[in-house]
Amino acid sequence: MSVFADRADRLAELVRSAELDLLVVSNLVNVRYLTGFSGTNGIVVLGPGRTSPVRVFGTDFRYYERVRPRLTEYDVQRAETDILQIPAKIAAEQAPQGTTDKLRLGFDEAHLTVRAHKQLGELVGDRAELVPAGGFVEHLRVVKDPDEVARMRRAAAIAADLYEWVASDFGLAGRTEREVALALEIRAKELGADGLSFPPIIAAAANGALPHAEPGDIEIPRDTLVIVDLGCIVEGYCSDCTRTYATGSLEDEAKSVYRVVREAQATALAGVRAGAESRELDAIARRMIDEAGYGEQFGHGLGHGVGLEVHEEPRLTPRAEGALVAGNAVTVEPGVYLPGRFGVRIEDLVIVTEEGCEVLTPTSKELTVA
Amino acid sequence: MSVFADRADRLAELVRSAELDLLVVSNLVNVRYLTGFSGTNGIVVLGPGRTSPVRVFGTDFRYYERVRPRLTEYDVQRAETDILQIPAKIAAEQAPQGTTDKLRLGFDEAHLTVRAHKQLGELVGDRAELVPAGGFVEHLRVVKDPDEVARMRRAAAIAADLYEWVASDFGLAGRTEREVALALEIRAKELGADGLSFPPIIAAAANGALPHAEPGDIEIPRDTLVIVDLGCIVEGYCSDCTRTYATGSLEDEAKSVYRVVREAQATALAGVRAGAESRELDAIARRMIDEAGYGEQFGHGLGHGVGLEVHEEPRLTPRAEGALVAGNAVTVEPGVYLPGRFGVRIEDLVIVTEEGCEVLTPTSKELTVA
Repeated sequence: MSVFADRADRLAELVRSAELDLLVVSNLVNVRYLTGFSGTNGIVVLGPGRTSPVRVFGTDFRYYERVRPRLTEYDVQRAETDILQIPAKIAAEQAPQGTTDKLRLGFDEAHLTVRAHKQLGELVGDRAELVPAGGFVEHLRVVKDPDEVARMRRAAAIAADLYEWVASDFGLAGRTEREVALALEIRAKELGADGLSFPPIIAAAANGALPHAEPGDIEIPRDTLVIVDLGCIVEGYCSDCTRTYATGSLEDEAKSVYRVVREAQATALAGVRAGAESRELDAIARRMIDEAGYGEQFGHGLGHGVGLEVHEEPRLTPRAEGALVAGNAVTVEPGVYLPGRFGVRIEDLVIVTEEGCEVLTPTSKELTVA
Repeated sequence: MSVFADRADRLAELVRSAELDLLVVSNLVNVRYLTGFSGTNGIVVLGPGRTSPVRVFGTDFRYYERVRPRLTEYDVQRAETDILQIPAKIAAEQAPQGTTDKLRLGFDEAHLTVRAHKQLGELVGDRAELVPAGGFVEHLRVVKDPDEVARMRRAAAIAADLYEWVASDFGLAGRTEREVALALEIRAKELGADGLSFPPIIAAAANGALPHAEPGDIEIPRDTLVIVDLGCIVEGYCSDCTRTYATGSLEDEAKSVYRVVREAQATALAGVRAGAESRELDAIARRMIDEAGYGEQFGHGLGHGVGLEVHEEPRLTPRAEGALVAGNAVTVEPGVYLPGRFGVRIEDLVIVTEEGCEVLTPTSKELTVA
């Protein structure tokens, strides 16, 4: 069975369990997961229906001819004007006749805008009840299948080549942050990535202590720390990695902070396995950093899921609920940020397994001069 | 007065005219227009208020310290968890006391999700009534100020260098579409653009007849047509341009279609000025193409606005309402697409003036062999 048919079947099962007749999937990332469609206007309508099971992909004339022969797993329909006419038409076909009973039509309340919700409501009229039902596709997406893992592995491998290249060949000291960022973006494409997962963070010295620094035009000085946070995209799937480099000899506290973060990262990483509580993994790293006296300087969660989006479920934070399962793809990235001085963050991307995890980001975590 | 203070003042006037007490601006593109903020979590709350005028920008800890000293035109506030707490807190401060009269709090129904709307409603409780009020910032954005035009001019100038380079140096025939697209993306960055406005369309022969072709891995053949559609981004602002190149000698119909599109484009362009009806401009080009026998093969509108987004208001389509005003930035891009054979599209980006327009895309429209 094709991966798209399999995903559609599993989603249909969730729809059925929620006692919905149909689910409207409007978020394009979720549509891509279900169909492979990467255009700008597409929708999936799926579920047991009332008169017959439904598995429809809708798009407009720009994509219709191209998608139809390829997406054999779906009934591909073409929207004349507004794409919301597709679920409305299906709802009309499937609605119970001669009764006040209404079709239960699920929608993603975390994605559909107030306006689109109103439009959809007007289009379906009295025939259907709109039921908030977001998160179903995200629930499937948290467990990666071998094909998804393979893409992420390739994305991470290209990123590893980028780290190797920037540390050994291109160099950091004497370059501007922006120059490094640009060179990495270009090289990522040359190495076969579709692009970077996000604008790369190249943050030297005090900039490294800003949680979301943008690369600047000032030369990276010698004898400081530089955070390099980047990921690649391959066939829609992201990687994510951070290494912190030295540009010469460091003050003692910089070296000791690096050691603290590295040990916290390694310890949390060693705790990753199916069944590990997300919150507890965060706590492992947080406790070690706190005991070293830097608890206040670790101002973000330990990690996050990665896949079609570079930030997705599950989250590894102090308030996260639940435990990891095999097939989750998560980052493990503690950091310590000393305002006005420097920051250190070390991040790996891993696939959770029953016994532990597969680390996709092989770049050395020894403190390296670049 | 700074550009941000000016925009905020003009928006506040619209809010007042709509008899709203406050407007919540949640769409990040609109937030960027109002504040220059280009991060991933920000909100603007603005309006006459009830107890005092409000002009607040809210963000989280990642951006707060950096933005506060720079954005002096706004009261910069920091959200502890959810950014919607910022409008909720302001609503609580501004709500009428000891009366059943409610604060009128506008929100963007075309942007706010059903979930966020519900959250906001719960946060403000009985104190405020949520009023759909989208489109206010978009209304301001359609008229570009000199600073915006300057950025778009630079973006278009880099794109012009790209066209020059791809036609004269890099070449098309014998390259794959994907190879050309990649080379253009890299060169755009080397030439100082922040990036391209969208993944470039390089569509040879029959691919040119697909409205949204993605660059493929097949070699671009000789003696056909190739659509090259691309734009650059400079400091947040987009350009957009299309040229169609020949890769050798062409069959007669390809040459005549090129002539038809070029003349339709030139004629529509000559009609662009403040006061011109959007629908009529579309009709000018459509009539000429129709008279040449290709009316059915021009399956999209004549053009669209460009600015912080590569597709924004105003639209030049058969159903568009209203007329152009000075300062609008629009594309003029008729096309003819013959399925299975080839497509031709020629697109300029112009700034509307009282007497006509300034064309930002100087690349020659002579049929050029590349």
